[in-house]
Amino acid sequence: MKLSSRVLGIKHSAIRKFYVYANKAKAEGKKVYYLNIGQPDITTPEIFMEEVRKYDARVLEYAPSEGIPSLMDAIIDYYRRYGMVYDRHNVLITNGGSEALTFILSCILDPGDEVIIPEPYYTNYATFIAMADGKVRPLTTVPEDGYHYADKEKILPLINEKTKAILLANPGNPTGNILTRAEMGMICDLAKEHDFYIIADEVYREFVYDGKEMTSFGQFEDVEDRVIIVDSISKRFSACGARVGCVITKNHELHGNLLKLAQGRLCAPTLEQIGAAALYRMDPSYFDEVRAEYEHRRNVVVDALRSIDGVVCEKPGGSFYVTCKLPVENAEEFLIWLLEEFDDQGETVMFAPAEGFYATPGLGKSEMRIAYVLKEEDMRRSIEIIRLGLEAYKNRK
Amino acid sequence: MKLSSRVLGIKHSAIRKFYVYANKAKAEGKKVYYLNIGQPDITTPEIFMEEVRKYDARVLEYAPSEGIPSLMDAIIDYYRRYGMVYDRHNVLITNGGSEALTFILSCILDPGDEVIIPEPYYTNYATFIAMADGKVRPLTTVPEDGYHYADKEKILPLINEKTKAILLANPGNPTGNILTRAEMGMICDLAKEHDFYIIADEVYREFVYDGKEMTSFGQFEDVEDRVIIVDSISKRFSACGARVGCVITKNHELHGNLLKLAQGRLCAPTLEQIGAAALYRMDPSYFDEVRAEYEHRRNVVVDALRSIDGVVCEKPGGSFYVTCKLPVENAEEFLIWLLEEFDDQGETVMFAPAEGFYATPGLGKSEMRIAYVLKEEDMRRSIEIIRLGLEAYKNRK
Repeated sequence: MKLSSRVLGIKHSAIRKFYVYANKAKAEGKKVYYLNIGQPDITTPEIFMEEVRKYDARVLEYAPSEGIPSLMDAIIDYYRRYGMVYDRHNVLITNGGSEALTFILSCILDPGDEVIIPEPYYTNYATFIAMADGKVRPLTTVPEDGYHYADKEKILPLINEKTKAILLANPGNPTGNILTRAEMGMICDLAKEHDFYIIADEVYREFVYDGKEMTSFGQFEDVEDRVIIVDSISKRFSACGARVGCVITKNHELHGNLLKLAQGRLCAPTLEQIGAAALYRMDPSYFDEVRAEYEHRRNVVVDALRSIDGVVCEKPGGSFYVTCKLPVENAEEFLIWLLEEFDDQGETVMFAPAEGFYATPGLGKSEMRIAYVLKEEDMRRSIEIIRLGLEAYKNRK
Repeated sequence: MKLSSRVLGIKHSAIRKFYVYANKAKAEGKKVYYLNIGQPDITTPEIFMEEVRKYDARVLEYAPSEGIPSLMDAIIDYYRRYGMVYDRHNVLITNGGSEALTFILSCILDPGDEVIIPEPYYTNYATFIAMADGKVRPLTTVPEDGYHYADKEKILPLINEKTKAILLANPGNPTGNILTRAEMGMICDLAKEHDFYIIADEVYREFVYDGKEMTSFGQFEDVEDRVIIVDSISKRFSACGARVGCVITKNHELHGNLLKLAQGRLCAPTLEQIGAAALYRMDPSYFDEVRAEYEHRRNVVVDALRSIDGVVCEKPGGSFYVTCKLPVENAEEFLIWLLEEFDDQGETVMFAPAEGFYATPGLGKSEMRIAYVLKEEDMRRSIEIIRLGLEAYKNRK
């Protein structure tokens, strides 16, 4: 009873495998700061549960496969703020951004087809591509220039007759880097010239700092038939547990085929869609406060990291992650040591070693990703523990 | 920008394509009885929303990928009633039975592998199998003997080196037929001899009539490593819009690999899982009333259908569907005619033509499926309209 080669080739969650050590540290009485997972501490807006609580239909029925109209319309209105004009035939509501990606890849990849992804990347991308029997073609970057990838000369050699798409998180996860409008235009030109899709994971869209304007691939009209936007309420409204996402596309053939898959799974959850519609209807000023909080944390975290001897850390422009190089050979070993052997006044730290974010063997060994999803004082304290840990690690035995 | 062969090969929902005609009938002022979709009218138990409304965490966080512990434990306790003993490592909570099937098939099928399914079948099975690049191997049945398929001589010729599983809805959808314990034993023996999985879709498990006992494939210990149970709260508790299902398996290697896919999509929705846990904790007497209501409707519907000249309809033993043969050459054409050309006192009927439930071309053309999800008087009236429609259709022009 062999399992599929596909699933056997998928790795277990890179982030979660260190929980064994973290749980042991906790059991020993240590306090662990969790910087490893993108679970924000920002309060979920109360309007979400207020709307959910109002639901009083006698029967909790299936929602339409494409999503409930009030949520689709709220999303359409949200996009209009950014000059992006969609109608209901451009929107498909999904079980989180995850299902959006699963559906998109199933629609565009035949077995063996390739997707270009800048590495380090959100590891679940690899799972979704494997589920569609596709292949990751990594676009390698380095910490020294902030994981910059938008370079025509770097992308061109990766394109071949199997290339079906480039998949970009912008703002980035795990790097936090953002694309300039010119870089996006270059990628659009490549997509047209070499006939591939741009899958734009823009779930961190509202978290762009330094006064910069949010730019979406949906704003490039000359590629509107080949841009596929993945979106989600999880990070934008700190509602990760709701699992509401969407696909936005002006490619009608693609939308029609996505809808087949959506009909197959019947619908996304009704209640959470109702709550999500209320979130999208909030005044846009909501984002100003959240953005300011994250931007402040980023400054605190990056400044603290850069003050540590031997750390290589460019300041990222968006999302709520920083990936950086540590002055250690193997960040996984350092993390396990931090959890097993180290503490400062009974406290230690859990981060995500970055090796799991790379497809190319051997890369990322010295790097870590942290999510600045804790409040300022906890973030300061966490980086201080990492600093102390690095010193002790260097001088160990 | 070609789409994948996989998705282009998937058919649009067989049930939903007739809505164009139904909507037109409605727009013309006709009342349409919808018998085509398995959306029960049974009230969702109030405890579901009561529990959901109580949720007051500050942040709506990700749930564990495998499901929230209280729901897993409630499901484990539910199964214990039937002598089936599971622990949390045997359970994986999913976004409805649909995601359960998607994950299972992704785990066991390599491209080109085959799954034996009795036809007529729940059409979305074909979508899920296509998503895993597998192939449906249909086990053909006929209305004259109630769509009976549990016959060793019928199944054996379909088994080959590509056979990875048999996928059975028991009680059946769309046929409503149920397996005897002896038939299940025979299928278990075949699975052992020829080394394949039994995927047991038992979402209608509580809806077994005529005083018969519910039997689950989970009760056959000699195949516990190859039985994979798909379950869901949608029909059992009339909570279709909640999208909470699960996989139950004692195969640890399979469970570990299912978990990889579950981690990829992060989690099932938190709130709906909380509500679902309360549903599973209800007193089992809840099912007695619902079962009695469905059984009564089945009797009414089947008696009415069998009194129509030329209808071939064996009495199904479970679920809430009846599939039967009509005295027409083409049930799709008859349905369109019912919606476009016919009414009795301004009323007409929408059913699901059964051709879409078959993989073998040409089969099922004269058959229809109806879901007895409306109250008795509406079901009586609907079948009366079908009877009058059949008469008028025979004498048309």
